[in-house]
Amino acid sequence: MKARVTVTLKTGVLDPQGQAIEGSLKGLGFSGVTSVRQGKVFDLAFDGSNEEEARASISEMCEKLLANTVIENYAIEILN
Amino acid sequence: MKARVTVTLKTGVLDPQGQAIEGSLKGLGFSGVTSVRQGKVFDLAFDGSNEEEARASISEMCEKLLANTVIENYAIEILN
Repeated sequence: MKARVTVTLKTGVLDPQGQAIEGSLKGLGFSGVTSVRQGKVFDLAFDGSNEEEARASISEMCEKLLANTVIENYAIEILN
Repeated sequence: MKARVTVTLKTGVLDPQGQAIEGSLKGLGFSGVTSVRQGKVFDLAFDGSNEEEARASISEMCEKLLANTVIENYAIEILN
Protein backbone atom coordinates (compact mmCIF):
# COMPACT_ATOMS: atom_id res chain seq x y z
CA MET A 1 0.00 0.00 0.00
CA LYS A 2 1.24 3.48 -0.79
CA ALA A 3 0.46 6.85 0.69
CA ARG A 4 1.61 10.42 0.33
CA VAL A 5 1.90 12.73 3.32
CA THR A 6 2.14 16.46 2.64
CA VAL A 7 3.40 18.65 5.48
CA THR A 8 2.94 22.42 5.14
CA LEU A 9 3.50 25.36 7.44
CA LYS A 10 0.41 26.70 9.17
CA THR A 11 -0.94 30.06 8.04
CA GLY A 12 0.85 32.86 9.84
CA VAL A 13 4.06 30.93 10.48
CA LEU A 14 7.02 32.74 8.90
CA ASP A 15 8.69 30.90 6.01
CA PRO A 16 12.12 32.45 5.34
CA GLN A 17 13.00 29.64 2.91
CA GLY A 18 9.87 30.36 0.88
CA GLN A 19 10.67 34.08 0.92
CA ALA A 20 14.18 33.38 -0.35
CA ILE A 21 12.77 31.28 -3.21
CA GLU A 22 10.26 34.04 -4.01
CA GLY A 23 13.15 36.55 -4.16
CA SER A 24 15.15 34.25 -6.45
CA LEU A 25 12.18 33.71 -8.78
CA LYS A 26 11.69 37.47 -9.06
CA GLY A 27 15.41 37.83 -9.74
CA LEU A 28 15.03 35.33 -12.59
CA GLY A 29 12.29 37.49 -14.13
CA PHE A 30 9.15 35.78 -12.78
CA SER A 31 7.72 39.07 -11.57
CA GLY A 32 4.14 37.81 -11.20
CA VAL A 33 4.95 35.59 -8.22
CA THR A 34 3.32 36.99 -5.07
CA SER A 35 3.98 34.24 -2.54
CA VAL A 36 5.97 31.02 -2.13
CA ARG A 37 5.59 28.63 0.82
CA GLN A 38 7.75 25.55 1.05
CA GLY A 39 6.64 22.26 2.54
CA LYS A 40 7.65 18.61 2.61
CA VAL A 41 6.24 15.49 1.06
CA PHE A 42 6.77 11.89 2.20
CA ASP A 43 5.98 8.95 -0.06
CA LEU A 44 5.41 5.92 2.13
CA ALA A 45 5.08 2.26 1.23
CA PHE A 46 3.87 -0.16 3.89
CA ASP A 47 2.34 -3.56 4.51
CA GLY A 48 -1.40 -3.85 5.00
CA SER A 49 -4.49 -3.33 2.90
CA ASN A 50 -7.03 -1.71 5.22
CA GLU A 51 -7.33 1.98 4.28
CA GLU A 52 -8.84 3.03 7.61
CA GLU A 53 -6.11 1.34 9.64
CA ALA A 54 -3.46 2.78 7.34
CA ARG A 55 -4.83 6.29 7.75
CA ALA A 56 -4.84 5.95 11.57
CA SER A 57 -1.31 4.58 11.57
CA ILE A 58 -0.01 7.37 9.31
CA SER A 59 -1.73 10.00 11.47
CA GLU A 60 0.22 8.64 14.40
CA MET A 61 3.48 8.77 12.37
CA CYS A 62 2.76 12.42 11.56
CA GLU A 63 2.03 13.32 15.19
CA LYS A 64 5.14 11.53 16.43
CA LEU A 65 7.75 12.18 13.74
CA LEU A 66 6.82 13.54 10.34
CA ALA A 67 5.25 16.86 11.30
CA ASN A 68 5.75 19.43 14.03
CA THR A 69 2.05 19.99 14.72
CA VAL A 70 2.73 23.22 16.62
CA ILE A 71 3.63 24.97 13.37
CA GLU A 72 2.75 22.48 10.62
CA ASN A 73 -0.35 20.89 9.12
CA TYR A 74 -0.33 17.51 7.46
CA ALA A 75 -2.52 15.89 4.82
CA ILE A 76 -2.67 12.15 4.13
CA GLU A 77 -3.51 10.76 0.72
CA ILE A 78 -3.85 6.99 0.27
CA LEU A 79 -2.69 6.15 -3.25
CA ASN A 80 -3.83 2.54 -3.62
CA MET B 1 -3.99 32.15 -8.96
CA LYS B 2 -2.51 29.37 -6.88
CA ALA B 3 -0.51 26.30 -7.77
CA ARG B 4 1.29 23.49 -6.00
CA VAL B 5 4.57 22.09 -7.31
CA THR B 6 5.68 18.71 -5.97
CA VAL B 7 9.33 17.79 -6.48
CA THR B 8 10.31 14.16 -5.88
CA LEU B 9 13.49 12.19 -6.41
CA LYS B 10 13.60 10.07 -9.56
CA THR B 11 13.38 6.31 -9.18
CA GLY B 12 16.79 4.84 -8.49
CA VAL B 13 18.25 7.97 -6.91
CA LEU B 14 19.42 7.24 -3.36
CA ASP B 15 17.47 9.01 -0.61
CA PRO B 16 19.47 8.84 2.65
CA GLN B 17 17.05 11.25 4.33
CA GLY B 18 14.11 8.99 3.49
CA GLN B 19 16.07 5.97 4.75
CA ALA B 20 16.77 7.75 8.04
CA ILE B 21 13.06 8.53 8.46
CA GLU B 22 12.20 4.90 7.65
CA GLY B 23 14.66 3.78 10.35
CA SER B 24 13.15 6.20 12.88
CA LEU B 25 9.60 5.06 12.10
CA LYS B 26 10.63 1.44 12.63
CA GLY B 27 12.29 2.47 15.89
CA LEU B 28 9.00 4.02 16.98
CA GLY B 29 7.23 0.71 16.37
CA PHE B 30 5.82 1.24 12.86
CA SER B 31 7.25 -2.05 11.65
CA GLY B 32 5.05 -2.27 8.53
CA VAL B 33 6.82 0.60 6.76
CA THR B 34 8.79 -0.70 3.79
CA SER B 35 9.93 2.51 2.11
CA VAL B 36 10.04 6.26 2.69
CA ARG B 37 11.06 8.82 0.05
CA GLN B 38 11.18 12.49 0.91
CA GLY B 39 10.35 15.28 -1.50
CA LYS B 40 9.52 18.98 -1.49
CA VAL B 41 6.37 20.92 -2.13
CA PHE B 42 6.05 24.58 -3.15
CA ASP B 43 2.79 26.47 -2.82
CA LEU B 44 2.89 29.38 -5.24
CA ALA B 45 0.59 32.36 -5.60
CA PHE B 46 0.92 34.55 -8.66
CA ASP B 47 -0.82 37.11 -10.86
CA GLY B 48 -2.61 35.98 -14.00
CA SER B 49 -5.63 33.88 -14.81
CA ASN B 50 -4.67 31.85 -17.87
CA GLU B 51 -4.05 28.25 -16.79
CA GLU B 52 -2.01 27.33 -19.85
CA GLU B 53 0.32 30.32 -19.47
CA ALA B 54 0.63 29.65 -15.73
CA ARG B 55 1.59 26.04 -16.36
CA ALA B 56 4.24 27.05 -18.91
CA SER B 57 5.64 29.68 -16.56
CA ILE B 58 5.79 27.28 -13.61
CA SER B 59 7.49 24.64 -15.79
CA GLU B 60 10.16 27.21 -16.51
CA MET B 61 10.50 28.01 -12.77
CA CYS B 62 10.98 24.29 -12.08
CA GLU B 63 13.60 23.88 -14.79
CA LYS B 64 15.51 26.96 -13.66
CA LEU B 65 15.21 26.90 -9.87
CA LEU B 66 12.74 24.65 -8.08
CA ALA B 67 13.91 21.24 -9.24
CA ASN B 68 17.21 19.64 -10.16
CA THR B 69 15.94 17.81 -13.23
CA VAL B 70 18.98 15.55 -13.34
CA ILE B 71 17.78 13.72 -10.24
CA GLU B 72 14.27 15.06 -9.57
CA ASN B 73 10.84 14.97 -11.18
CA TYR B 74 8.29 17.71 -10.74
CA ALA B 75 4.50 17.78 -10.93
CA ILE B 76 2.42 20.95 -11.32
CA GLU B 77 -1.11 21.22 -9.98
CA ILE B 78 -3.12 24.38 -10.66
CA LEU B 79 -5.41 24.92 -7.67
CA ASN B 80 -7.76 27.64 -8.96
